[in-house]
Amino acid sequence: MSNRQLIQVINPNTSLAMTETIGRAARAVAGANTDILAVCPAQGVPSIEGHFDEAIAAIGVLEQVKAGREQGARGHVIACFGDPGLLAARELASGPVVGIAEAAMHVATLVATRFSIVTTLPRTVVIARHLLQQYGFVHHCAAIHAIDLPVLALEDGSGVAQEKVRQRCIQAKREDGSGAIVLGCGGMADLAQELTRELGLPVIDGVGAAVKMVESLLALGLGTSKHGDLDYPVAKRLSGQFERLN
Amino acid sequence: MSNRQLIQVINPNTSLAMTETIGRAARAVAGANTDILAVCPAQGVPSIEGHFDEAIAAIGVLEQVKAGREQGARGHVIACFGDPGLLAARELASGPVVGIAEAAMHVATLVATRFSIVTTLPRTVVIARHLLQQYGFVHHCAAIHAIDLPVLALEDGSGVAQEKVRQRCIQAKREDGSGAIVLGCGGMADLAQELTRELGLPVIDGVGAAVKMVESLLALGLGTSKHGDLDYPVAKRLSGQFERLN
Amino acid sequence: MSNRQLIQVINPNTSLAMTETIGRAARAVAGANTDILAVCPAQGVPSIEGHFDEAIAAIGVLEQVKAGREQGARGHVIACFGDPGLLAARELASGPVVGIAEAAMHVATLVATRFSIVTTLPRTVVIARHLLQQYGFVHHCAAIHAIDLPVLALEDGSGVAQEKVRQRCIQAKREDGSGAIVLGCGGMADLAQELTRELGLPVIDGVGAAVKMVESLLALGLGTSKHGDLDYPVAKRLSGQFERLN
Amino acid sequence: MSNRQLIQVINPNTSLAMTETIGRAARAVAGANTDILAVCPAQGVPSIEGHFDEAIAAIGVLEQVKAGREQGARGHVIACFGDPGLLAARELASGPVVGIAEAAMHVATLVATRFSIVTTLPRTVVIARHLLQQYGFVHHCAAIHAIDLPVLALEDGSGVAQEKVRQRCIQAKREDGSGAIVLGCGGMADLAQELTRELGLPVIDGVGAAVKMVESLLALGLGTSKHGDLDYPVAKRLSGQFERLN
Amino acid sequence: MSNRQLIQVINPNTSLAMTETIGRAARAVAGANTDILAVCPAQGVPSIEGHFDEAIAAIGVLEQVKAGREQGARGHVIACFGDPGLLAARELASGPVVGIAEAAMHVATLVATRFSIVTTLPRTVVIARHLLQQYGFVHHCAAIHAIDLPVLALEDGSGVAQEKVRQRCIQAKREDGSGAIVLGCGGMADLAQELTRELGLPVIDGVGAAVKMVESLLALGLGTSKHGDLDYPVAKRLSGQFERLN
Amino acid sequence: MSNRQLIQVINPNTSLAMTETIGRAARAVAGANTDILAVCPAQGVPSIEGHFDEAIAAIGVLEQVKAGREQGARGHVIACFGDPGLLAARELASGPVVGIAEAAMHVATLVATRFSIVTTLPRTVVIARHLLQQYGFVHHCAAIHAIDLPVLALEDGSGVAQEKVRQRCIQAKREDGSGAIVLGCGGMADLAQELTRELGLPVIDGVGAAVKMVESLLALGLGTSKHGDLDYPVAKRLSGQFERLN
Repeated sequence: MSNRQLIQVINPNTSLAMTETIGRAARAVAGANTDILAVCPAQGVPSIEGHFDEAIAAIGVLEQVKAGREQGARGHVIACFGDPGLLAARELASGPVVGIAEAAMHVATLVATRFSIVTTLPRTVVIARHLLQQYGFVHHCAAIHAIDLPVLALEDGSGVAQEKVRQRCIQAKREDGSGAIVLGCGGMADLAQELTRELGLPVIDGVGAAVKMVESLLALGLGTSKHGDLDYPVAKRLSGQFERLN
Repeated sequence: MSNRQLIQVINPNTSLAMTETIGRAARAVAGANTDILAVCPAQGVPSIEGHFDEAIAAIGVLEQVKAGREQGARGHVIACFGDPGLLAARELASGPVVGIAEAAMHVATLVATRFSIVTTLPRTVVIARHLLQQYGFVHHCAAIHAIDLPVLALEDGSGVAQEKVRQRCIQAKREDGSGAIVLGCGGMADLAQELTRELGLPVIDGVGAAVKMVESLLALGLGTSKHGDLDYPVAKRLSGQFERLN
Repeated sequence: MSNRQLIQVINPNTSLAMTETIGRAARAVAGANTDILAVCPAQGVPSIEGHFDEAIAAIGVLEQVKAGREQGARGHVIACFGDPGLLAARELASGPVVGIAEAAMHVATLVATRFSIVTTLPRTVVIARHLLQQYGFVHHCAAIHAIDLPVLALEDGSGVAQEKVRQRCIQAKREDGSGAIVLGCGGMADLAQELTRELGLPVIDGVGAAVKMVESLLALGLGTSKHGDLDYPVAKRLSGQFERLN
Repeated sequence: MSNRQLIQVINPNTSLAMTETIGRAARAVAGANTDILAVCPAQGVPSIEGHFDEAIAAIGVLEQVKAGREQGARGHVIACFGDPGLLAARELASGPVVGIAEAAMHVATLVATRFSIVTTLPRTVVIARHLLQQYGFVHHCAAIHAIDLPVLALEDGSGVAQEKVRQRCIQAKREDGSGAIVLGCGGMADLAQELTRELGLPVIDGVGAAVKMVESLLALGLGTSKHGDLDYPVAKRLSGQFERLN
Repeated sequence: MSNRQLIQVINPNTSLAMTETIGRAARAVAGANTDILAVCPAQGVPSIEGHFDEAIAAIGVLEQVKAGREQGARGHVIACFGDPGLLAARELASGPVVGIAEAAMHVATLVATRFSIVTTLPRTVVIARHLLQQYGFVHHCAAIHAIDLPVLALEDGSGVAQEKVRQRCIQAKREDGSGAIVLGCGGMADLAQELTRELGLPVIDGVGAAVKMVESLLALGLGTSKHGDLDYPVAKRLSGQFERLN
Repeated sequence: MSNRQLIQVINPNTSLAMTETIGRAARAVAGANTDILAVCPAQGVPSIEGHFDEAIAAIGVLEQVKAGREQGARGHVIACFGDPGLLAARELASGPVVGIAEAAMHVATLVATRFSIVTTLPRTVVIARHLLQQYGFVHHCAAIHAIDLPVLALEDGSGVAQEKVRQRCIQAKREDGSGAIVLGCGGMADLAQELTRELGLPVIDGVGAAVKMVESLLALGLGTSKHGDLDYPVAKRLSGQFERLN
């Protein structure tokens, strides 16, 4: 009972199928005392494939973090590879908030000297590139590959996108000189384990990685620092559609 | 008539007084054929002092860019020093979109080998630092100073914040070895000219700088590239409060 | 009359034909109140294709800046893609001095997340690379391509070099994942507009970009900072061939 | 039983007291199914305060990793803030190997935008600086402070070193603008929790952090990549004192 | 007599044949007053092809530096391209200590704007990459090539490895746009002069380069700085197999 | 006779006194077979204290390199801390060309993990900073200090400037945590040896360092690479005052 902890896993898009995939991946690695609350915003974008989509998704992330706190969540995962709203969510939260891109990249550097990323549309490559720069991993990433299919192709049941991911991972292994591969989309979460086995190198899903990072921070008694620039937002009245965030 | 061009200057917060200040600064430098449309979102945050505020402000920026396009605006300025929603707005726009932090930093590197930034709250320093990194100017910035007053203190009519900005600029000139100073808040736009004169070095306001950058791009026949990752957002149905952005 | 402003555009090599091309490109974008004075040194190198050529050209640039000031020029453009003598010219000038490489690179980052450069001889690639580093744009440049023809091939009237530039731009668009292309030679100035149209992405000529940057700085009331390391040269007697620069 | 996992925590110096401290810190955060095996080399240096000490300690680390594998350890922690022998140990191990500097730095970036480090002797500062560069965190570290006492002062029972650490942490909080503090020595492991409470910001001990990272990697089914440059050492016969490592 | 100086060249692996090759290369360029003492550890690894090998080799290097000092060596060269134990050896030495990777890279930047590296096994590429980062030459290196043969293939008398090195150098010259090539293994020392002649560009052997660097430092009256973090190791009792290093 | 080699040491300013100082420093460390030819341009600037001065000095350097080659010089030193005209001179020369800033910085990284620079006027600091960036040593330099006296104060016979240099070196040793100090002006060349002794750490003069680098390159059979971007200047007719350089 009392020793159970609730971790909220937020799919920033509105796809229920993807929320399912993500929730499943989270539960598959969660600790015995962890309950996973997989959610997505009621309003927003059905998939996230650019900066515009990310800006909208960030609002959903913030609303969910607020709701999650009220529901007793002790930590939060942002389950989209662009980590939309990450620093904003950290301001709002007292517990840890970890993005799946961030988590996957950190984990990759612990098991290999360089990693490759396999993502969806070419236009999301720039997002990954900016994150590498912000997180400090520019020199740890050998290459970023796009399968050139939209995010939701991963949920169409045909397996075509999954097979493209697989092919790109095989190619990345052969050509990049990388020791690990990072899957660049929350919707690929369920592929990691099998690809790891098939390819014989770590293929890393950020959802699982982020859940373990949040659990780790909680076990260490660490939450988001409230000293300095991640302190709670300066109190001010939000108006209109944003009143919910007051 | 037909040779006039409309540039939209978006104050991402909801403060009408600051929108006035910004509009005035924009008009003061605009070219003879330029009309300035100074706007702010109807809903959002009264001031922007952190990542949370920025995430909310980004939505207002996007709504305004959409509205601006419909009103015939040929270019857009994002008039908050964090450049909230910049890349998302670029996806939405066909014309140029320039942020005031970006513009001020670019301009500073054209007139000095290094510059200092004077901003409002200490917690916004990290935002400036991330922008320096993203824009490539880490080595061009000697120091970032915060006056430790909230953004809206610039609009309280007392002049206290303005005097603090002035003091910090004087100190920065003396101590940083910088050749120019960048004012780190849209609400400081009306101070640049006088401080430039008093201090005897370029004190740069991003609002004016961004207006001139947009005008320059228009004169060069250049808009936001629609080839690659700043192309229009992938068509998808936005739901709920975001329907307005469809 | 009195509200007209003179901007000096300096072709650092001695080619009159190229000075013509550059002057034309400058005038094509100059504001209604701007007069363009396109000049080149009487003595120096007929084209600039390496560090040696640049060192010689820098002297011509300085002599022209001095002459330009005496003729009432309020700002100066250095119209060679290596920006030869840029910081030295800034020391000499009170108004703004902008190089065309610098201007084109800045502009490119305002309309795309990454750009490619198309230049002339392979041996000038290193010059572009050093400028990217100095200006902070290493991570914004996807690739630098050389057409492997000398600078003056652009002025031989055959159109061969122009066609090579065009082919390289098409190739760069296809392969680099860049949203914009920067033309890496003042002699390519007249190609930008047509290539922009043909390729469907911003193809940027630095001459036009630099003129607009200088106009922008002037409109903002900004000149080169005379506080610190761009102050006028320490007074000392120059001897021999350099007496002209006293 | 069978679901229990053994994690080996290697103190690279020969101090038994410090091995105790480190083992205690590891066990304090270890998961319910984790057994901690805290060890140190039989031969080597009593404390690690420079590159020479690190080179010697690396051999002890390798011997222990080899022994640990034979004892069934599924993962390994290198509990000295210089992470001596980290990449070499990764070659030797199949499971994950995590250094405490690495782990603490990673964790710090998840809870704050910048962190400070408090270490022992000034001469170890360069080691921390090199690790920041190797791991990609140069821009995330605001400052490195040294208390100017040798490592073993932390084990002399007087509490003087501990008080110095505390004072430096307080000073770092006040002056650096950091949101978190990283303790730069395995011998400080038992101070983190209390300092976190007293200072009101995350004070991070790498020992605990590394244990949680190893547990996380194990839960994710990830070990050190054996594809590429962290593969097992190329088979060759080691001679003399190194025969033990064959 | 008295004006002769002894420079110790340490082959960090135990291969006598390679020690011969290295000694010969050192003597070929040594000054008239320099005596070369080419040594290798009695115990350790027969070749160095990864971090594990390097960790072991570092001990041999330290033992040799200690011995060398006792024999009157005034400076030391570490003749393995990973520069194993470099900073540790500097702590131990009063005279200069120079690694061959370091020396070759420094020299390359003095004769070309960019260089390529040709090394042995692919798994050693990461070592070269880390050194480039540590030494500051990331932007000076165009590419790192591996011939995919083990180090000792250079000593098997067949000439196969030598021919592969030659082929790779030719390819690097053609494809990388580099002005110089650095040979990435001490065992390639005797190839530099001939390849320089054949290829018509500087092909740099680190052994010779390091000997000249040490001689240069000695002529300048400079040894390793004993102020700060390269001071002699903090005195402490080493135990067991390391007693020799006391 | 035939085995003697001539190295040309070029003082890029026109001060004969400084040329003397520099020549003396060069001869003090030159090898037994080396003849030093210390020269300065007949025309140019009496001292170099900014980018303008450097641009002029570069021409003198080129004229001297040309003359030096005709006089049989096998290598060249550019003896001003800004390394004016370095890459241009390399194009012109077949033998090695080394700048004193470059040489001093390289040498400093061989004897210490970080160094400080002591220079003359504050406005030259930016020049040193740009060189650090170009050479790759940004992270190896702890601080740059200016004594705030013009270059020629070093030649006024009063010793005031020398004492200021000494004081700044002492301060740098105490405050910067550096293991070595680089003297940032050719006119300080004769101070290095005594300051090294007095301060107990390497105080490095670039003139001596550059002479030894050139000698080293010659001994290694290496000259400036003529493959790629340092090849001889593209043949073209120089006009007017530059005819001498044809």
